[in-house]
Amino acid sequence: MNRKIVLYLVGVTTIVIGVFICLSAFVSFLMEDALRHSVALSSCGLAVIVPSCFLVFFTRPKNEADRKFGIREGFAIVALGWLAASAAGAVSYMAVADFYPADAFFESVSGFSTTGASVIGPELQLRSGVTLPVGVEDLPKGLQFFRCLSNWLGGMGIVVLTIAILPLLNIGGQSLYNAETTGVKSSSSDNRIAPRIASAAKILWLVYLILTVAEAILLKLAGMSFFDSVCHAFSTVATGGFSTRQMSIAAYHSPLIEWIIIVFMFLSGTNFMLHIRACTGHPKAFWQDEEFRFYALTIAGSVFLITISLIFLGGDGFEAPLTTFRTALFQVVSLFTSTGYTTADYATWPIFSVLILFLLSFLGGCGGSTSGGLKCVRGILLFKFSVMEIRRCIFPSLVPGIRLNGVRLEMSTVHKTVGFLSCYLGLYLLFALLLALFSANVDLETCLSASIACLSNIGPGFGRVGPSWTYVWMTDPAKILLAFEMILGRLELYTFLVLFLPAFWKK
Amino acid sequence: MNRKIVLYLVGVTTIVIGVFICLSAFVSFLMEDALRHSVALSSCGLAVIVPSCFLVFFTRPKNEADRKFGIREGFAIVALGWLAASAAGAVSYMAVADFYPADAFFESVSGFSTTGASVIGPELQLRSGVTLPVGVEDLPKGLQFFRCLSNWLGGMGIVVLTIAILPLLNIGGQSLYNAETTGVKSSSSDNRIAPRIASAAKILWLVYLILTVAEAILLKLAGMSFFDSVCHAFSTVATGGFSTRQMSIAAYHSPLIEWIIIVFMFLSGTNFMLHIRACTGHPKAFWQDEEFRFYALTIAGSVFLITISLIFLGGDGFEAPLTTFRTALFQVVSLFTSTGYTTADYATWPIFSVLILFLLSFLGGCGGSTSGGLKCVRGILLFKFSVMEIRRCIFPSLVPGIRLNGVRLEMSTVHKTVGFLSCYLGLYLLFALLLALFSANVDLETCLSASIACLSNIGPGFGRVGPSWTYVWMTDPAKILLAFEMILGRLELYTFLVLFLPAFWKK
Repeated sequence: MNRKIVLYLVGVTTIVIGVFICLSAFVSFLMEDALRHSVALSSCGLAVIVPSCFLVFFTRPKNEADRKFGIREGFAIVALGWLAASAAGAVSYMAVADFYPADAFFESVSGFSTTGASVIGPELQLRSGVTLPVGVEDLPKGLQFFRCLSNWLGGMGIVVLTIAILPLLNIGGQSLYNAETTGVKSSSSDNRIAPRIASAAKILWLVYLILTVAEAILLKLAGMSFFDSVCHAFSTVATGGFSTRQMSIAAYHSPLIEWIIIVFMFLSGTNFMLHIRACTGHPKAFWQDEEFRFYALTIAGSVFLITISLIFLGGDGFEAPLTTFRTALFQVVSLFTSTGYTTADYATWPIFSVLILFLLSFLGGCGGSTSGGLKCVRGILLFKFSVMEIRRCIFPSLVPGIRLNGVRLEMSTVHKTVGFLSCYLGLYLLFALLLALFSANVDLETCLSASIACLSNIGPGFGRVGPSWTYVWMTDPAKILLAFEMILGRLELYTFLVLFLPAFWKK
Repeated sequence: MNRKIVLYLVGVTTIVIGVFICLSAFVSFLMEDALRHSVALSSCGLAVIVPSCFLVFFTRPKNEADRKFGIREGFAIVALGWLAASAAGAVSYMAVADFYPADAFFESVSGFSTTGASVIGPELQLRSGVTLPVGVEDLPKGLQFFRCLSNWLGGMGIVVLTIAILPLLNIGGQSLYNAETTGVKSSSSDNRIAPRIASAAKILWLVYLILTVAEAILLKLAGMSFFDSVCHAFSTVATGGFSTRQMSIAAYHSPLIEWIIIVFMFLSGTNFMLHIRACTGHPKAFWQDEEFRFYALTIAGSVFLITISLIFLGGDGFEAPLTTFRTALFQVVSLFTSTGYTTADYATWPIFSVLILFLLSFLGGCGGSTSGGLKCVRGILLFKFSVMEIRRCIFPSLVPGIRLNGVRLEMSTVHKTVGFLSCYLGLYLLFALLLALFSANVDLETCLSASIACLSNIGPGFGRVGPSWTYVWMTDPAKILLAFEMILGRLELYTFLVLFLPAFWKK
């Protein structure tokens, strides 16, 4: 393990975070926060930048040996980078708004992992002993900005991670993403993204930026303040879900705003490669992609079932079919893409609707997007794998093989996917168990739901972590536990799990 | 598909069931039930036997072509045989105790699938309009006997199914069971059970019979009535869990009886091949088996954690460590082996204990036993598979391979196991969703728990299907749905799922 290059790149990451904290301080100044808040934020930025600069200076690669960069270094940088960014962010919450350390770490990890689970609400106890009267609205604007910005930066990290880094680390993403795009008719040379991963990342960031700007403009036109529209654009595109309002999107009482956000959540849960293909003259790319079809049809089906169930079983408040449809669509897209905005307390809906939302939160959006969870493409593969094994009961001599978008996948890719499911479930249950151990005041529903809401990077769950609750009532160990679960989920499990192999640390 | 042989063998099965219903009528007579009950039971027996005899007569194989028996016929017989036996049993509940059809079908399927979920309790509404004052105790003794007997017959069926039939149908059991026994040092010729499957089934039935007789004698010596001890021996060895008391084993207030039942539940959840090996001069066979070690250690670990959690968090009634230990051990072994007896309302225990029990109910006992669920051996394989895939992230050139008891498994066996997990989860969630659709009065916890309690063939679950509840309050469609889920779980999924392949029905 070349520790120097790892520390060097982690240092570079925290410098970037520090710069963005300073940017938030500038926003704080512009938005006329109390001066002490702006000063506190900029001090935080500097407190992160200065030691990071020293780290970078002392670990800078001086020769070829220092630049040696292999698979292990890749894993270590991704995992440590996310942890370091979260730690840097936590400092800001503590310094500016007087959070307790566990709350600050939880909120910061939730931001950078684009989860959107929050401890902020009227029950949040600050170190000064006071509580917030309303919630998010009481925080300095600069910190509100940084909170949504952390979603956005996390999303940027994910774009690089899934498209550029994971394939190099043999997580099997490469072959999946290739398979996804090969359904589109084009010259074969056009499909290889491996040789130009660096430039691919740049193009993807451009898509990410365009989506953000477009959403911010539309939200502004729909009547949001400029500040709110930028913040919400940040956290929508990252499928993060942090809002500048305690009531989330429900606070705006605006169907137009809801529709805009639905569209952008949907686009952010789509494989970004498809956006690029669509922009470069292949508008049919979306529908030609098997995963996208599955993604869109699952949303359509779920919304249909939930709307029907709400109209017939939901009781009062669901008389207007169109409003009910929009409400159902909003929650479905929000939970499915792991964004976590809410416009209704879905935890009180009929059990059938609740269960559909619960299942969608396991699945998550498309591979190659900023959404969390298992991802549609893995769901499709697992379904095909199961059908294949059922068929092989009666046709034992059938050669195993699975096609995606018409292309036969390598068995190693299938194995990676299946192993992912197994790890995903195992970790989900392990964390639920540890949560029950660390937090004796949870009930079964909350326990099972909080664990998936964090592992899938959604944010709100059911029971006592539902839309009308926050995570603030949990014990400190439970908060730190869930924070680790968010990082684990965000880094597609394997990236974090390899660190626990003894072989990883051997020379 | 040779339909004649399928109908012929299904007919033979129902004749056997009919004979056992007549036996129950005889017991009913001996136990001095009201004469009309004995007459009703024997009429049921005849009503099942007579048409079955006609069926068998008209479909009897007359030539070599009629005897043609392939994989498809095997699947069809197993699935139809279980359904037919359940239907025959349902007739008895309706004729003798005036059950409504959905209740009778649910109870009968629960019996033959060795699930042990019940609708019988003080809330059960009979067709005559009356309700039972206490529950099981109010049923005629003959029907109580048949109820436990159906567990026992179901268990016998499973022994043949898993050891003798499934391997022939390429469910991968064969290779797993071989691998399990090869850990034991012996001449290689000793390990092959394939060539003598018919005789293996006979030996396994002998083990099954010996366990039943031994338990009945011990329970009688411990103070149970002769009738109760035989009934409980039937349902313990089958890991069924039907009792002759509404309060289950808690009704006896006898630590000795609890200990005896714990031991026999444990033995019945063990791979029966190990019992044979142990009896034929290899007493170390148990501990040399990887799955058995996992099974025993999981029980030990779970009991330790639950006992600690009950003593410290359980509140009143858990002051005596030894009693608490026994109570914890009883519920752990009962749920883990999918028996479903209870001596305490574990649904009210601290959440940490509840969650451990919930997880154990997914896993189930050892392969090659009468227990349900995923089975330990599959859990071990999935864990090894996950670790292998994590290792392959840093060592991409590693050749995939998994060893069980020191023997390298074929990849097709591993695939079958992984496919099983995927089907198991998919069906679990699908049935939970359908349950929510068919029964609007369930809550999330009950829904998720009833689905696993039936798929794993346990019986009691959590929430409103916990130990102090029955399934009687569910709607009729929900009962029929769960009955199908029990059969699906009992037949190791694949056996039932192949019936849904269009290719299965093609010539």
